[in-house]
Amino acid sequence: MTRLSEDDLIARYFAPLAGVGGLGLRDDAAVLNPRAGRDLVLTVDMLAAGIHFFPDDPPASIARKALGVNVSDLAAKGADPVGFLLGLALPDGWTESWLAAFAQGLGEAAGDWRCPLLGGDTVRANGGLTLSITALGEVPRGRMVQRGAARAGDVLCITGTIGDAALGLRLRAEGEGQALPSGDSAGTRAVADAGRWGAALSEADRRHLVDRFLHPQPRIALGAALRDNARAAMDVSDGLAGDLAKMMRTSGAAAVVEGERVPLSLAARAALRADAGLIDLVLTGGDDYEILCAVPPERVEPLTREAGRAGVALAAIGQVVAGEGLPVFRIGGAKRRFPAGSFSHF
Amino acid sequence: MTRLSEDDLIARYFAPLAGVGGLGLRDDAAVLNPRAGRDLVLTVDMLAAGIHFFPDDPPASIARKALGVNVSDLAAKGADPVGFLLGLALPDGWTESWLAAFAQGLGEAAGDWRCPLLGGDTVRANGGLTLSITALGEVPRGRMVQRGAARAGDVLCITGTIGDAALGLRLRAEGEGQALPSGDSAGTRAVADAGRWGAALSEADRRHLVDRFLHPQPRIALGAALRDNARAAMDVSDGLAGDLAKMMRTSGAAAVVEGERVPLSLAARAALRADAGLIDLVLTGGDDYEILCAVPPERVEPLTREAGRAGVALAAIGQVVAGEGLPVFRIGGAKRRFPAGSFSHF
Repeated sequence: MTRLSEDDLIARYFAPLAGVGGLGLRDDAAVLNPRAGRDLVLTVDMLAAGIHFFPDDPPASIARKALGVNVSDLAAKGADPVGFLLGLALPDGWTESWLAAFAQGLGEAAGDWRCPLLGGDTVRANGGLTLSITALGEVPRGRMVQRGAARAGDVLCITGTIGDAALGLRLRAEGEGQALPSGDSAGTRAVADAGRWGAALSEADRRHLVDRFLHPQPRIALGAALRDNARAAMDVSDGLAGDLAKMMRTSGAAAVVEGERVPLSLAARAALRADAGLIDLVLTGGDDYEILCAVPPERVEPLTREAGRAGVALAAIGQVVAGEGLPVFRIGGAKRRFPAGSFSHF
Repeated sequence: MTRLSEDDLIARYFAPLAGVGGLGLRDDAAVLNPRAGRDLVLTVDMLAAGIHFFPDDPPASIARKALGVNVSDLAAKGADPVGFLLGLALPDGWTESWLAAFAQGLGEAAGDWRCPLLGGDTVRANGGLTLSITALGEVPRGRMVQRGAARAGDVLCITGTIGDAALGLRLRAEGEGQALPSGDSAGTRAVADAGRWGAALSEADRRHLVDRFLHPQPRIALGAALRDNARAAMDVSDGLAGDLAKMMRTSGAAAVVEGERVPLSLAARAALRADAGLIDLVLTGGDDYEILCAVPPERVEPLTREAGRAGVALAAIGQVVAGEGLPVFRIGGAKRRFPAGSFSHF
């Protein structure tokens, strides 16, 4: 089988995805005309096979996730997507059919989130598939929603539901008889456990949880409402407890969360009924890609209303308080603190 | 030995390199206020250990090269550097001393080229060290120098000297008794050959060639002069012959190059005296990171003068002509064409 050259590969699979500034991917660089009165917001995320996704995840899912985790960062900053650049390191065994499915999935995700391809680089990997995406967004000048601006008295709100992706990852690992991507130190025992509680779930619930692991849903519809109402925000990618701790440390404040207010899907509730101990995984597991924000009390109602109009669920889960230290989660009468690094891909 | 968390690692080694828009690397994203009347120029390059550099290259050299190849793309577009984002996938065996040296080299290169760190992501690698850098530059609105704008009659010019890095790569591989990074298909025989012609070089010549492989010198000083005088430009990263072919294909034109006008360092000349067959490697080997440009005849003199003021050597090596097909190199009375893909990392 003859292999495509890098130029042919780009022309066949990626040039059709290029936005206006991408110049058909036929130049060394992309060009952007920033709009007057806007700031550019920039974020980069790298994903490696076996660490952030399973090597045999569907290629379209890998593409959607790689772009989605970046667009989620933009959404949390109140930014509207502008475009992205892709770095793709392909392992020796790549095939054209894999690449075609990857490019198709990438194009669909880029269309869904109005975030066109602007440029890229394709190289041979030393090891497994590795992806790097740099995403660009824009906000009105000076309006990027920062992580470290929360103040005592702010209400903590979260979009969507929490814990689904972490549960879905366990189910996917168990279903495939595979080791978990290596960031999850709980290892093979956790996979065996997933066999037990997973059996208590309906097929639809299992599918829901795995889908949430494979396909992040960046909350870009919330951008303008966040800019208008939130004091601070970040996306939850490394677990609610750990990311809330980061936000409070950067803000110089502390937090109290009412555990029973943390929004859970029906599938996650079913899993918790089968194994109440999963609450730790729900609160510390990663890959949620929901938005955590700190909102002045008088802005909670307008933010919730605008989120509803945008089709994004929003729940108030606690409060920013003066002080320092790890956030407190009130769960069934107990006060829990989750040590930093309870979940990390690194 | 305890391992740093990702947050501690970023705070210790990378936050000190952050430019204004990097927000101390304490947020999910960076923010840029584009200057009025400017376009942003964006480029991404990925580098993998064993493909683009040797795993035991000095960490500061790896850092300088990773940033340099991106800044070189900006320079070729006539863009002034604005900043960069770093994706870093670290293999299992990373050490703090390696990382400290890498960060120091990165900071020095960023300072040299006025291209501060704006953001990044650090993950575990699946395999060897893999780096992805996205660099941003700016040009006056509408003034990015494109690759595909060359026209018949333009003079082809090149900065610096050609072939040094390809020769340096061979010497480095031979000196280390290592396989060449896998993009070079010439393999172990070429390494043995390097032992023969390398022995004919002075120690200073050998050092010069290896240094050119390790440390690209992006020609950013040429930015304004290129914008003012060149019709088309690109950086030479995959070999002069192959990159010239790309420029001509994108421009819909052909080219004739006078081989004896291609600028060579004293060290490269010494190598060619020892083995005249190395001319193919000089013209097709990669990693030059010089700028190839197509210049209207009446602009050659002002461009050469401004390049000289900026301390960048510039040589006229040939001409753009009507037609299509691979560029012709006139070498010692013969006409040579170098097939595409004679050098490729992919």
